[in-house]
Amino acid sequence: MSRRRQIYEGKAKILYEGPEPGTIIQYFKDDATAFNAQKKGTISGKGVLNNRISEHLFTLLGHIGVPTHFIRRLNMREQLVRQVEIVPIEVVVRNVVAGSLAKRLGIEEGTPLPRTIIEYYLKDDALGDPMVTDEHIAAFGWASQEEMHDIADLAIRINDFLSGLFAAVGIRLVDFKLEFGRLWDGDFARIILADEISPDGCRLWDMTTNEKLDKDRFRRDLGGEVEAYQDVARRLGLLPEGNV
Amino acid sequence: MSRRRQIYEGKAKILYEGPEPGTIIQYFKDDATAFNAQKKGTISGKGVLNNRISEHLFTLLGHIGVPTHFIRRLNMREQLVRQVEIVPIEVVVRNVVAGSLAKRLGIEEGTPLPRTIIEYYLKDDALGDPMVTDEHIAAFGWASQEEMHDIADLAIRINDFLSGLFAAVGIRLVDFKLEFGRLWDGDFARIILADEISPDGCRLWDMTTNEKLDKDRFRRDLGGEVEAYQDVARRLGLLPEGNV
Ligand SMILES: Nc1ncnc2c1ncn2[C@@H]1O[C@H](COP(=O)(O)OP(=O)(O)O)[C@@H](O)[C@H]1O
Ligand SMILES: Nc1ncnc2c1ncn2[C@@H]1O[C@H](COP(=O)(O)OP(=O)(O)O)[C@@H](O)[C@H]1O
Ligand SMILES: [Mg+2]
Ligand SMILES: [Mg+2]
Repeated sequence: MSRRRQIYEGKAKILYEGPEPGTIIQYFKDDATAFNAQKKGTISGKGVLNNRISEHLFTLLGHIGVPTHFIRRLNMREQLVRQVEIVPIEVVVRNVVAGSLAKRLGIEEGTPLPRTIIEYYLKDDALGDPMVTDEHIAAFGWASQEEMHDIADLAIRINDFLSGLFAAVGIRLVDFKLEFGRLWDGDFARIILADEISPDGCRLWDMTTNEKLDKDRFRRDLGGEVEAYQDVARRLGLLPEGNV
Repeated sequence: MSRRRQIYEGKAKILYEGPEPGTIIQYFKDDATAFNAQKKGTISGKGVLNNRISEHLFTLLGHIGVPTHFIRRLNMREQLVRQVEIVPIEVVVRNVVAGSLAKRLGIEEGTPLPRTIIEYYLKDDALGDPMVTDEHIAAFGWASQEEMHDIADLAIRINDFLSGLFAAVGIRLVDFKLEFGRLWDGDFARIILADEISPDGCRLWDMTTNEKLDKDRFRRDLGGEVEAYQDVARRLGLLPEGNV
């Protein structure tokens, strides 16, 4: 591997300068954090699985016309992506009540939502990623109203597609987090899907048993994290059948 | 005073059955609470001032065509209002960063907002009035999208009017809380302004000195609560000039 300049080290990934201008390399670590990094650990093999799962989902989303940063996977832990200016908003799409929503609104986890909810959180670890609305986003200029319109539209399309994809393999897509970025083309910026989609940022429940196949296993000390991530990859056809 | 049926006792007011069907009496207490009623106290004379200030503001808002529950003041502590079905959402309008917004977003209190922000909080003491968005409100049916449209429109009009009114008497309207209700007319419900508008639910800062003329004096143990409320009433022309 040639020597590369590291751009950023986050909680789950490292970004390196890519081979061409405007590209970067996402390296997927095994590090896991929860509760705003108050809880830290390692899930051995997670990075490999997330790299593969995210590649798969971004590729399929590209096929339905969702613009994404994904270019190609480079190796077990790395993928080449288009560098974007990340919109500092975590977009959470919810189909079933779980996690912080259950707690905040006093609704039992597992209650199906009468309709899908999109939530926005300011991407700011120091502030604990506070929930914000279109109002705050517009007032502080974190994204334009046109950009937020594109983001909401894409979030809904991604939710519909992924809900179907996971349903086909016996998994309920409870909720998930997305990040979007601006791809500049001269003076014009286009919103594209960035970051990753993996069990780190999704709640995935087995449709029959309600077993959690996602990072909640780590958050809640349930154990079997890597087996759950492997199960997701296997159901998506990303692991040889023998590999359970 | 005739014997009347008490309908509800809240943190700052008591509701009694009104003389005619569809009316109720709001009795303004001197009780003050803060931080979701973890802090309790009394501000002697507050109820009288809030009754008078709220009467004044609701009357003027009525004149510009904002539909309100206010019918007439009955005495020092009571006003007759139209009974409504309260929309369980506290509507907060912000012009300047203060309070929970300053804390949540890490922005210095007193920073003018680039544009007005409307926030919604679920009216649920047990849950600590969690912030919600149009998304949650629509999903759980707490108000229809048409109702939320009316509410947002009214909130903006009320903000513009009150900002002007307070500016004229040297007061900056930093933020304030509104409650709306449904007035049923057969099968049709109209959204009208309910509850109260008073220094209990507004942040009012002297324009020159930034002195706080509102419940933050109580929340932050600054003292001089009733003098501050009196100052607001006096500036609005509601107290004889001699009464400082
Ligand atoms: N295409 C991209 N261009 C630039 N930055 C990106 C892109 N995709 C993701 N990122 C950013 O790279 C970082 C990924 O590392 P991660 O460990 O997830 O970080 P964090 O701890 O901030 O969540 C995130 O900050 C994410 O916003
Ligand atoms: N016109 C109205 N009809 C019915 N209820 C009202 C009306 N105006 C205000 N209310 C309700 O009356 C109560 C006022 O008492 P308050 O002490 O402010 O209560 P709380 O502790 O719930 O804030 C509030 O619950 C408010 O929603
Ligand atoms: Mg991340
Ligand atoms: Mg109240």
